[in-house]
Order: sequence, then C-alpha cells, then structure tokens
Amino acid sequence: MPKLIDHEERREHIAEAAWRVIVRDGVAAASVRTVAAEAGMSPGALRHIFASQSELLVFALQLVSNRAVQRMMALPTYPTPAEMVEALASQLLPLDRERRAEMEVYLALFTAANSDPRLHGPRDATHQAMRDGCRDMIDRLDNGTDLDPKADRELEAARLHAVIDGLAAHLVYEPADADTEWARRVLVRHLESLRAPR
Amino acid sequence: MPKLIDHEERREHIAEAAWRVIVRDGVAAASVRTVAAEAGMSPGALRHIFASQSELLVFALQLVSNRAVQRMMALPTYPTPAEMVEALASQLLPLDRERRAEMEVYLALFTAANSDPRLHGPRDATHQAMRDGCRDMIDRLDNGTDLDPKADRELEAARLHAVIDGLAAHLVYEPADADTEWARRVLVRHLESLRAPR
Repeated sequence: MPKLIDHEERREHIAEAAWRVIVRDGVAAASVRTVAAEAGMSPGALRHIFASQSELLVFALQLVSNRAVQRMMALPTYPTPAEMVEALASQLLPLDRERRAEMEVYLALFTAANSDPRLHGPRDATHQAMRDGCRDMIDRLDNGTDLDPKADRELEAARLHAVIDGLAAHLVYEPADADTEWARRVLVRHLESLRAPR
Repeated sequence: MPKLIDHEERREHIAEAAWRVIVRDGVAAASVRTVAAEAGMSPGALRHIFASQSELLVFALQLVSNRAVQRMMALPTYPTPAEMVEALASQLLPLDRERRAEMEVYLALFTAANSDPRLHGPRDATHQAMRDGCRDMIDRLDNGTDLDPKADRELEAARLHAVIDGLAAHLVYEPADADTEWARRVLVRHLESLRAPR
C-alpha cells in the first residue's frame, strides 16, 4: 500500500517541521501558516492533511510518544531485569539530540495544555501511557531481588515516573552540549534503591 | 519608608496580574498591553514600573520563588528533621490553589525559556535556588538516622529535586480539585527510603 505509507510519511514530515517551530519559537508560534512554511509547502496543502492547528499539535505530541515506544521496542533483551529497566527508562530521558528535541516538544505541549483545553485529551493519554510504562518497569523488577517484596507497586510506579520526568526536565534546562552522566547516575541509584534489603 | 513599600506592592500587584494572564492564556499572551489591562492600568503606567515585557516576566518568576521561600521561612520548627524536611518540600508542591497557580506560572516560564534567551538567566537562578534548597534538606536529614551515612549527598539532592519537580508537574496535569494525597505519600515514601538501613 504505497499510498498509505506516503500519507504517513507526509504527516511525520509536517509534524517534524512543527517540532522545529515549537523548539525554536514556542507552541503559540506553531500556526498552520508557519509550520507550512517550515515544511516547504502551502498552508492549503497542509490543511489537506491536518484540518486545523489543533489536529497538527495533537499529532506532533503523539509522534513524540510513538518515537519513544519505537525505541523501546527496538531494544535488545538485556541479561538482567535491572539492566533492561535502565535501558527502557533511558529512552524517556533527553540523553542525545534526538531525544532532547522530543523532550522540548513534550514539555512545550504539556505546558501549553494548561491553558489550551484542546490539548487536554492527548496530554492525558500520553501521561497515562508514560505511567503504564513505569508500572511495566516496576513489574519487571518484581522478581524477588530487584524490588523490595514489601513495596507498594502503584506508589513506586508514580515515584519512578516523577524521577524520570523531573530528570528529563532538568536535562532540558541545561545546555544541549552539557554532560548528562549525572542524570544516568541518579536513575541507576534510584533503580538500585528499589531493591530488596539484604 | 511608605513610598518604597507602595512601589513593591505595585510591582507584586502587576506580577500577579501577569500570573493570571499566563495561567489563562500562556506566556506568549502576557504582553505589556494585556497585563496592564488585567491589572486595571494603562500600558504607559505599567512601563513606568517595568520597562519591557522581559523585565515583567523576570519579576513574575522571581515572585514565584520568593513566595515559596517566604512560606518556608514562616514554617514552625518541627519535632524531627524528617518532619521538618517533609514540611519544607511540601511548600514546593502545588497542594493548594495558591501553590498550584504559582506552579503553573513556574512551568510556563521555565518552558518558555527553552525558546526565549531573555529568560535563561532567571530560570537558571531559580533552578539553582531550588537545587540549593534540596541540598539543605539532604543536609538536615544527615544526622546518622534519617540519611544513609553511605549516601552520595550531591546525587541525593539531585534525585530529591527530580522527585519534587516531577510530582509538581504531575499535580498540575490533574484537575485543580483532584485529590493530592497520592503525591504526599510518594514524597513521604521517598524521604523514608533515604534512611540508614537498620
């Protein structure tokens, strides 16, 4: 089905143009007109694919979350659950330029949703998908060794989610070329602190 | 010095008007003109106090951080360091309407700084003040009981900072009338997890 693939590619091409505008100038600047210019097409041609700015922003946010999920699915199987969870969680941290751009878009759209009800639905869906990912990580650690058997798993999923989102935001506040090793060490320390006491 | 007090009160009155515009419509909407209208004054009168939108936004962000510090200073002395730290950290979480409005402004301005270099300086200063606050909390716990003596204090300050900022953002993503008890439980669990193993 070459037609369908072309269509999806075009949507991603436009969403990535929207990402660049958002990272450079903020969400308010990402109008149909400016994103069309950034994508090298006419506003009319863009409106054939996204009928409104709202549809475009919703897809731009979904694409952030789809890319993270794709990276997680593409990971090899690690020898231990702890290493597997570290690798999964690292996909949600802006540890390279690609993930940093995604995180800036994610923060910009999540924050814009505070004053834009059109973005509430997609923000809540993405937020819940992230929480589900954290529940999955806690479940993987729940093997008698990597998670304290007395742990409250729902609370630990919420805590891991807070650690990941907090670290992600703090990394974005630093210059793009700053060392990110400190954040990896905080993540590793957090995962180790969940272990059963010996 | 009634003149000086009047001046500071007027600055806070305008900054609070800016907060309302930011919470309602986002940072991009908070121009000198719209904030003046919200504060019930002319743009010219506002420019006598803040020469530019940039000066106004910088003060609006400083006021968020000043209010949090004022609340912390006004806390009573709690019987134990652990209770004291819980009370201090709670001042940085949007657990009531006042702190929620502040947190929405804080997130909006921190995110806007990603694409607005004028806000880099004040964002970094506020971020470092928050990190110093977390270092102070870790130091208070470092009494042989409330912090594992083998803990890396700088790393634990960064981890506590991530937990607090992550929880704060997640609370803002929920409706204003949603129950916030889960976040308090995550914070308490995090502080308990720092204790020396018995």
